[in-house]
Amino acid sequence: MDDIDFDRYDRIRPIRWTGEALELLDQRRLPFEVDYVRCLTSSEVAAAIHALTVRGAPAIGIAAAWGVVLASRAVEALDGGEAAVKLQPAIEELNAARPTAVNLGWALARMRAALLTAGQDWRAALEAQAHAIAADDLAANRRMGALGAALIEPGSNVLTHCNTGSLATAGFGTALGVIRAGVAQGRIGQVYAGETRPWLQGARLTAWELQQDGIAPTLVADAAAAHLMRTGRVQWVVVGADRICANGDTANKIGTYQLAISARHHGVRFMVAAPSSTVDMATPSGDAIDIEERDPGELFGLGGVRTAAADIRAWNPVFDVTPHGLIDAIVTERGVIERPDEEAMRVAFG
Amino acid sequence: MDDIDFDRYDRIRPIRWTGEALELLDQRRLPFEVDYVRCLTSSEVAAAIHALTVRGAPAIGIAAAWGVVLASRAVEALDGGEAAVKLQPAIEELNAARPTAVNLGWALARMRAALLTAGQDWRAALEAQAHAIAADDLAANRRMGALGAALIEPGSNVLTHCNTGSLATAGFGTALGVIRAGVAQGRIGQVYAGETRPWLQGARLTAWELQQDGIAPTLVADAAAAHLMRTGRVQWVVVGADRICANGDTANKIGTYQLAISARHHGVRFMVAAPSSTVDMATPSGDAIDIEERDPGELFGLGGVRTAAADIRAWNPVFDVTPHGLIDAIVTERGVIERPDEEAMRVAFG
Repeated sequence: MDDIDFDRYDRIRPIRWTGEALELLDQRRLPFEVDYVRCLTSSEVAAAIHALTVRGAPAIGIAAAWGVVLASRAVEALDGGEAAVKLQPAIEELNAARPTAVNLGWALARMRAALLTAGQDWRAALEAQAHAIAADDLAANRRMGALGAALIEPGSNVLTHCNTGSLATAGFGTALGVIRAGVAQGRIGQVYAGETRPWLQGARLTAWELQQDGIAPTLVADAAAAHLMRTGRVQWVVVGADRICANGDTANKIGTYQLAISARHHGVRFMVAAPSSTVDMATPSGDAIDIEERDPGELFGLGGVRTAAADIRAWNPVFDVTPHGLIDAIVTERGVIERPDEEAMRVAFG
Repeated sequence: MDDIDFDRYDRIRPIRWTGEALELLDQRRLPFEVDYVRCLTSSEVAAAIHALTVRGAPAIGIAAAWGVVLASRAVEALDGGEAAVKLQPAIEELNAARPTAVNLGWALARMRAALLTAGQDWRAALEAQAHAIAADDLAANRRMGALGAALIEPGSNVLTHCNTGSLATAGFGTALGVIRAGVAQGRIGQVYAGETRPWLQGARLTAWELQQDGIAPTLVADAAAAHLMRTGRVQWVVVGADRICANGDTANKIGTYQLAISARHHGVRFMVAAPSSTVDMATPSGDAIDIEERDPGELFGLGGVRTAAADIRAWNPVFDVTPHGLIDAIVTERGVIERPDEEAMRVAFG
C-alpha cells in the first residue's frame, strides 16, 4: 500500500463533524450545487438519511453514528447503561430511516455496544466510537483499494456502475477506491462510468467525484456496456455490493447482473469490492434475497421533467443478484476471494 | 394471417398525404403533444428528416418519396427522363438528410426508377410510386408480423427495445408488428419496453404507441433486462434492425447486443424483425460496419434538463452489432430464417 498516494485522488468528504454539528453534503443537488446540510439533532440526521441527502451504505452508517452523538446532547445520564436506555428512541428513529441498509444497523449496534461498556465518561466513549466508525471505514477502503488494484494488470481500462466512491463512504470508496488506487498506481488508463438509470448515480455522482479528483471519467449509457466490451475498451468491471451472501452471490444496484453476464461473455473480468460488513453469512444465496421494487414513477422522467408516456406501467427493481459463478474476485478489507463460492466464503468469513 | 385483426391494434399513422401536403407526426414532441408538421416542399421534408421530426428507417424512406412528389410541383418536364434530371437536386438533398438510413436511398432509387420508365404521365407515375412504397411497407409489416408471431408460444411475454412500431413505418411496425400480431392472436401476455437511453424511444414512443392501441406496456430500465429474464418474466426478445449483414450479423440501436447476450444466457429467445430492404448482402459481417457515434451531450441530460456533471466526457455509439450466433430467428416479409448464418442468408437473399 506504500506506493499509493491515497490523498491525491480523494478530496471529497460527504460527512463532516464540526464538534457541534454534523454537516452532510447534499447528494440530491450534486453535481450542480455543492452544499452541506447542517444537522443539530438526531431527528434531522434521520430525516437526511431518509431523504437521500446522504446515501451509500457506509456513509449512512457513519451519519447515523453521529446522529447518536447529537441525540446525546439532550440526555443526562450517570453512566453508559443509563444513556443507552435514554438514547434508545433516537437509535430506533435513526435505524428506521433506511431499513434495508445493512451498515445502518451495524453502525448503530457499535454505538450502543460502546455505551454499554462505558462508565461515567460515556459521552467521550460515544464520540470516540463515531470517530472510530468513520476512521475504520476509510482505512478499510484504502486497504480494499490496494488489494483490488493489485489484481488489475497495468494498462487496463475499467467500467464501474452506480456510485461507490468517497460520496458513499467516509472517503476513498469501495469499488471506486479500487479504481482510485489503480489510477494512483498507473495501472488503470480510462475509467468508464455507466450512467445508472433511473437515478443516474453514475452520471451525477461518480463522474463528478472522479473529476474533482483529477480522474477524467467517460460516461456511457448502461445499454452500451456490452459494445464497450466487444470493442476491447475495458478489461475489468469493478462494482460495489449491497449484500454478499454466504455463497458469494452478490446483490447490487440494478444493472450489475447484466454487466457480469456481458463481462463473462467477452472474457472481461468482474470484481466486487465491499467492506466485510456487507457480507451476510446468514443469507445462503441470492435466491433468498427479496429484491426491493421502488416507485415506477422513477422511470417516467428525470430532474422533475416527465419524459415517458402518460399512464403507463413500469417495473422498477432497485437491485439485482449476480450469481457467484460470474464473479472473478470479491475484495474486502480482509482480503481477496478469487472465484468465490460457498467453500471459499466459509474459509474467509465462516 | 386471416386470424389477425390488423386494424384493431394499429391506429397510429406517422405520415399522412393530403394530396397537396405531407403531414408528419412530430416525434420529437411525443408523447406530450400529438402534432403534425405540414410540409409543402421537398426541402421542408428533408429538414424534417434531418431534425428527427420523422424517424425510423422505413418511415424516413416513405417521407422522402413524398418529398420527391412535392418537388415535382415546381418542375415542368415533357417526360419522366427530363423530370428525373430536373428533380435530381431535390433527390440529393433528401438523400443527404440522414445518410446512414438504408431505406432512404432505397426509396429514392425506387422513385427515380419510376420516373425513368414513365412517359408524359410521369407525375401520376411518381405519385403512384410513393403510394406503392407506403402500401408495400404496410403489407410487408403485416406479413412479417404474422410470420414472427407464429414463432411465439402462446402464454409468452416479450421484451422490445427502441421503437420499431407504426411510428417508424407506414404502419403496424416491424418488431412491434410481430408483437402486435402476437397480442392480436392472444399469444403474448405482457409487453415490456426498454426505455432506450439516451433518446428514450421506448419510454416516449413505444410505450405511447402501444397504449394508444390498447396494449398496456410495462416500461423497464435498459439495465433491468437481465434481471427481468432471470426472474422468468420474458420468453422472447423481439427487436428491429438498421442493417442485416450477409452472415446475419445485425446492427441495431445501442443496447440490442446486450439484450442478445443476456437472452442467450437465460435461454430466452431472440428475434430480429425487419423488412428485406434492411438486408445488405454487400456487407459480409458486422465487423465491416462502422458504428456511428453521436454527440456525447446526449448523455448529459434528459428532456432538456442537464443531469450529468459538467465538463465530463462521454462515449455515445448509436448502434451495436449482434452476431448472428446470438439470433434465433430473422424475420422479413419474405420468410423466417431460423439460426441465421452465411449459408442460410445466401439461400434466402443470395
